[in-house]
Amino acid sequence: MAFELLSEHASFGGVQRFHRHDSTEIGLPMRFALYLPPGGERAAKGLLVFLAGLTCTEETFTMKAGAQRKAAELGLALLMPDTSPRGEAVSVLPGATASWDFGIAAGFYLDATQAPWATHWRMESYLMKELVPQVQAVLGLDAARTGIAGHSMGGHGALTLALRHPGTFASVSAIAPIAAPSRCPWGVKAFTGYLGEDRDAWPAHDASALMQAQARVPYPGGLLVDQGLADKFLVEQLYPEALESACAAIGQPLTLRRHDGYDHGYYFIASVIDDHLAHHARQFAG
Amino acid sequence: MAFELLSEHASFGGVQRFHRHDSTEIGLPMRFALYLPPGGERAAKGLLVFLAGLTCTEETFTMKAGAQRKAAELGLALLMPDTSPRGEAVSVLPGATASWDFGIAAGFYLDATQAPWATHWRMESYLMKELVPQVQAVLGLDAARTGIAGHSMGGHGALTLALRHPGTFASVSAIAPIAAPSRCPWGVKAFTGYLGEDRDAWPAHDASALMQAQARVPYPGGLLVDQGLADKFLVEQLYPEALESACAAIGQPLTLRRHDGYDHGYYFIASVIDDHLAHHARQFAG
Repeated sequence: MAFELLSEHASFGGVQRFHRHDSTEIGLPMRFALYLPPGGERAAKGLLVFLAGLTCTEETFTMKAGAQRKAAELGLALLMPDTSPRGEAVSVLPGATASWDFGIAAGFYLDATQAPWATHWRMESYLMKELVPQVQAVLGLDAARTGIAGHSMGGHGALTLALRHPGTFASVSAIAPIAAPSRCPWGVKAFTGYLGEDRDAWPAHDASALMQAQARVPYPGGLLVDQGLADKFLVEQLYPEALESACAAIGQPLTLRRHDGYDHGYYFIASVIDDHLAHHARQFAG
Repeated sequence: MAFELLSEHASFGGVQRFHRHDSTEIGLPMRFALYLPPGGERAAKGLLVFLAGLTCTEETFTMKAGAQRKAAELGLALLMPDTSPRGEAVSVLPGATASWDFGIAAGFYLDATQAPWATHWRMESYLMKELVPQVQAVLGLDAARTGIAGHSMGGHGALTLALRHPGTFASVSAIAPIAAPSRCPWGVKAFTGYLGEDRDAWPAHDASALMQAQARVPYPGGLLVDQGLADKFLVEQLYPEALESACAAIGQPLTLRRHDGYDHGYYFIASVIDDHLAHHARQFAG
């Protein structure tokens, strides 16, 4: 394959790999992590793409979520992309590193339309036209066996990419997603910077707005969303109730689980990740 | 309790806490992590002390090993100490930060006898006289329900503390331990610096030498040791065969599992940690 192998680690009978490749869409080298269950590339019964949140790299979920155990058991491959372009070419851009919620490690899984971001901040095209299809080809898996999930900014990414690209994923789930970015500070900052001040461009990248606008139920098998109630970002940034209303409005089945005492971090993610893997495996099994 | 709470995170129905306390033995504040299974302090059926390896903090195993899931299931509390004294008072000592295998984050779980380390590098006394008894008191658990395990330098620590303090632990296990430090570069460097050039002082802190010298079988319930065969430190640093020989010589039951393809890192630890928790839970159950 065209992926440079940076390192690999045996894990639960499978292998956890870290790769680098030259991305045409991003115009820079990108890193990602790929877990293969026991048996390797052609043994995977399905592929789950997991998008991480602000400040994360391809290593964060890979290292902290403990997802490989259940993935091995279910025969799932896991694809963990990075969260933005990186490197000297982009870290010199004004504003690229000034804050943890914009620029580097804050790509929001969309294609920026505004300078200077439009050149390299093309995470949506990178994932949808390049990385996911290339990994699917390696694994010999199609959309019926590919799901997408994510945490926080990555939950936003999973929901919006799944709604913007019908037929590409068999299943969707999210953990503490930014469910209505048009109305929260993280989203307003990102959308203003990447998409511009004209708010007409924003609903196309807002999971709740996208859901509300669906003509038919996009995921009849249901969405799974987990949210901790001790999450310090819940009230100001996440708006799960907006997604809940939008799903109810169009009849999209949604299992939204609210968990007393759980926060926004990886101890929460680890506590629910097995259920997400099982959710996707069920959809792949039809 | 006398432990300052730095943070806590709900985790698998229990809680992952990070604490700081003033250590009398170390003479400095120390940090540690404590996982409580569902039900809290008084619900724990046993306590497993897990000692981490070189370069680690109290957060490393806590964050990367994925141990909380099985600990919750088995009702075990987990205690993750730090790996050395830290802070400005000790980082200014000559040699404290110059290398990753000596000084800060490399306490080797012993009491140093050599200047300048003897003042603060008292990890054995810290653990055995202070932290472990204090946590046992909080949990209402005695030695019959306390086990010790560790990885690499922490595997050395678990084995040596268990052999040097009979009756303190019901069970012992290790993952890729430094099993014969007197003869490997890591151990020779640490023992020379902390214990001095006189090698007569070394066997008392060398797991294989200690085992060989036991008058009777110290752990009739058996030891569990896991070792990856793709571990880049195996040949030069770890010497599991020395421990194997010593156990055979005195009749100590040992399950030493050699795993093809696994390396020295946390992807290996995560892959076997459930078996270690189950091993200790079995000993606690009698």
